[in-house]
Amino acid sequence: MKTRELQILSLNAFGEGGATLAPDIAALVERRRKSYGAGSVLFYDEPLKIVRAEGAYLYASDGRGYLDFYNNVPTVGHCHPKVVEAVQRQVGAFNIHSRYLFDISHDYAEKLLATFPPALSNLVLTCTGSESNDLALRMAKRISGGSGFVVTRTAYHGNTATVTEVSPSSYKRGAPPPHVRLVPPPDPALFGNDVAQGFADAVADAIAAMEADGIKFAGLLVDTIFSSDGVYADPPGFLKAAVEVAHKAGGLFIADEVQPGFGRTGAGMWGFSRHGVMPDIVTMGKPMGNGYPIAGVVTRPEILTAFCDDFGYFNTFAASPLATAAALAVLEAIEEDGLIANAASVGRHLMARLKHLQAKAPITAVRGAGLYLGVEFGDEQGPAPEIAKGLINGLRQRGILIGAAGQYGNVLKIRPPLCVTTVHADELVDAMADLLA
Amino acid sequence: MKTRELQILSLNAFGEGGATLAPDIAALVERRRKSYGAGSVLFYDEPLKIVRAEGAYLYASDGRGYLDFYNNVPTVGHCHPKVVEAVQRQVGAFNIHSRYLFDISHDYAEKLLATFPPALSNLVLTCTGSESNDLALRMAKRISGGSGFVVTRTAYHGNTATVTEVSPSSYKRGAPPPHVRLVPPPDPALFGNDVAQGFADAVADAIAAMEADGIKFAGLLVDTIFSSDGVYADPPGFLKAAVEVAHKAGGLFIADEVQPGFGRTGAGMWGFSRHGVMPDIVTMGKPMGNGYPIAGVVTRPEILTAFCDDFGYFNTFAASPLATAAALAVLEAIEEDGLIANAASVGRHLMARLKHLQAKAPITAVRGAGLYLGVEFGDEQGPAPEIAKGLINGLRQRGILIGAAGQYGNVLKIRPPLCVTTVHADELVDAMADLLA
Repeated sequence: MKTRELQILSLNAFGEGGATLAPDIAALVERRRKSYGAGSVLFYDEPLKIVRAEGAYLYASDGRGYLDFYNNVPTVGHCHPKVVEAVQRQVGAFNIHSRYLFDISHDYAEKLLATFPPALSNLVLTCTGSESNDLALRMAKRISGGSGFVVTRTAYHGNTATVTEVSPSSYKRGAPPPHVRLVPPPDPALFGNDVAQGFADAVADAIAAMEADGIKFAGLLVDTIFSSDGVYADPPGFLKAAVEVAHKAGGLFIADEVQPGFGRTGAGMWGFSRHGVMPDIVTMGKPMGNGYPIAGVVTRPEILTAFCDDFGYFNTFAASPLATAAALAVLEAIEEDGLIANAASVGRHLMARLKHLQAKAPITAVRGAGLYLGVEFGDEQGPAPEIAKGLINGLRQRGILIGAAGQYGNVLKIRPPLCVTTVHADELVDAMADLLA
Repeated sequence: MKTRELQILSLNAFGEGGATLAPDIAALVERRRKSYGAGSVLFYDEPLKIVRAEGAYLYASDGRGYLDFYNNVPTVGHCHPKVVEAVQRQVGAFNIHSRYLFDISHDYAEKLLATFPPALSNLVLTCTGSESNDLALRMAKRISGGSGFVVTRTAYHGNTATVTEVSPSSYKRGAPPPHVRLVPPPDPALFGNDVAQGFADAVADAIAAMEADGIKFAGLLVDTIFSSDGVYADPPGFLKAAVEVAHKAGGLFIADEVQPGFGRTGAGMWGFSRHGVMPDIVTMGKPMGNGYPIAGVVTRPEILTAFCDDFGYFNTFAASPLATAAALAVLEAIEEDGLIANAASVGRHLMARLKHLQAKAPITAVRGAGLYLGVEFGDEQGPAPEIAKGLINGLRQRGILIGAAGQYGNVLKIRPPLCVTTVHADELVDAMADLLA
């Protein structure tokens, strides 16, 4: 099975026999091979050695600042003073697991839960998005009594054994196990004008096929902006019909907000709310602590209670004072810096400029919401991942960081820290135009 | 299935209708119930609200310092200045994922790998011990071609879906799935003088039973100090025969060093080396970053390479500059503060005093190595968890923190930060003697 992750790795990745590396970089690459072995994947033909970061910039050992349009984890900006200060203060005060009481984890939980519909009133903190999705799948199985999941065909939801099964983009060979059924992404190129109905029908067919094989449906799990599938956001509301299908079939709807969450779409805090749907379980991660490992699951109390009737769940590092101090600072920075409004306005500007570029370049689509945009390259011969690869390395040489996604690796994915400005956006599009010309 | 975790929860946990709580504590408990719901488990009849920590002490909102004999995560001491300084410096400089280069993750990997036998030369960093064990199980399946695992009957290896299956202490009901087979802990009370042979025979029987059911054996997974089973450390070397059985049967030996690792046994860095065995895969976690979420898997390159042929593995927060800065400071603190030697000498003193106490109290065994000790309570009527529970809450009232383990929750588990002194040890034993009298 040839999939996105494989192609992205080869697209973005440092490979053998490519560019001649500076001696310090070559030495570091060799040390890395020895210690981290086959598990090490580096970006770029000429990997970057980072020495400092601030705001929208990573600074490398070559003395240059690199404008970051790739990294969605440092969402409020690299080394945001508020987050830095919170971590510095808390790590010196105390840090311990959550079987003792302390104020900050409660302040955080209440502030976070206030951004959700009232029915979603319980929070479980974990350390990674993978742990969150792993837990969400277990909850959905417990509540539905089923074991089958429907996901998109280039989905990525995390790296545990169970979550890898629902992450076809991680397979380098082999097919998904029988309890995992794949549907195409909600792509207008596939479903025409009625993406909502087309996607819902695909979900219904997948459920019917699984149940025909004797597997009871447990849930529909989607990244609500379909990042690794190539970024699909429009029209808002298209998810509604698919969620209704899932519910009617007795399954749960799990909204994976690891990528679209925390304001990235510029339309409120959560990607699911753009679609007017009510998830049974919401998972989150990446930007939650601006790089500090914290993630979470939000759900209805009866779901959590039923799960906890069967299993004790405890997560040593999660919900610690240090984790929640970092995460609380992130929520405050999103508010104080007006980052959701900024994601909306800079995203709008960027989208307009990219659509303008589309007229002059082999771009088959520009998609997305807020500061999660996808630029798809192709022509009459089909998808053109080599253009994406050329841009990734070309932009790196011009001091801009970017990556790719999609089944064919031909979609440039744009997901910068939310503090970027229209000036930064212009810099990106100007450089793209130049390289494409 | 009545298991340890259930009993420990009820043993250590804050319950309904117990003590009258101070108003500030009662308010916090109520806020916690609302936000964290059924997933929230608190320690003690009267939960503690922590406000500060340093060295071997946690300081609570009641103005008291609590001597910590429970927490093995802050292994070099709460808020160790070296770790605090490293985190404070790095969080302000840069923190990003590991697809870029930076020096510190290589400095760390080399320093950590130097503590292992040379054959174990590859490291994968993760965020939690659960993620490490999840990955180790996948590697063992890939290499062995099997799917069956043997674990001890009150084992705890983590909280993902897959790892929970091999963690019988987490089940509140139900039995393990067919591919997980349980063996008794290496308890001299069960196996008499030849624990090595008895434990190896139990492993052999479990493998034979699984293969009779058509399940191919993949590996033996044990915590090398058998913490949640009730702490079994002696005689050093007893694991050798069981590991030979596992290898002969075509399976891998996974050493879970989450609890005994990083010097706790006072006999070198790793619990497995006390037994003179060579694991195929080693997993580690808890104390690795003194509370910062970092964990890892160490293995032979061919095992990692085979795994990576099938699956892309990437862990967003792992191997970051911030995680490895914290972890490097921990390794340096263990060395500079002489903590392995301290674990050995304070552990020896504590063991001697507890054995002396044994003559005057309903203690059926004192076991362990270095600063991981277990004190088992019981009498002619059998295990006495009520004594452990009484001590846990009694010691808390006297300003000492402790917990319990074992199938019946009747084993006091002693695993303080490795910086405790013989004066602290005397304080613990004196208070225990007083409460038991």
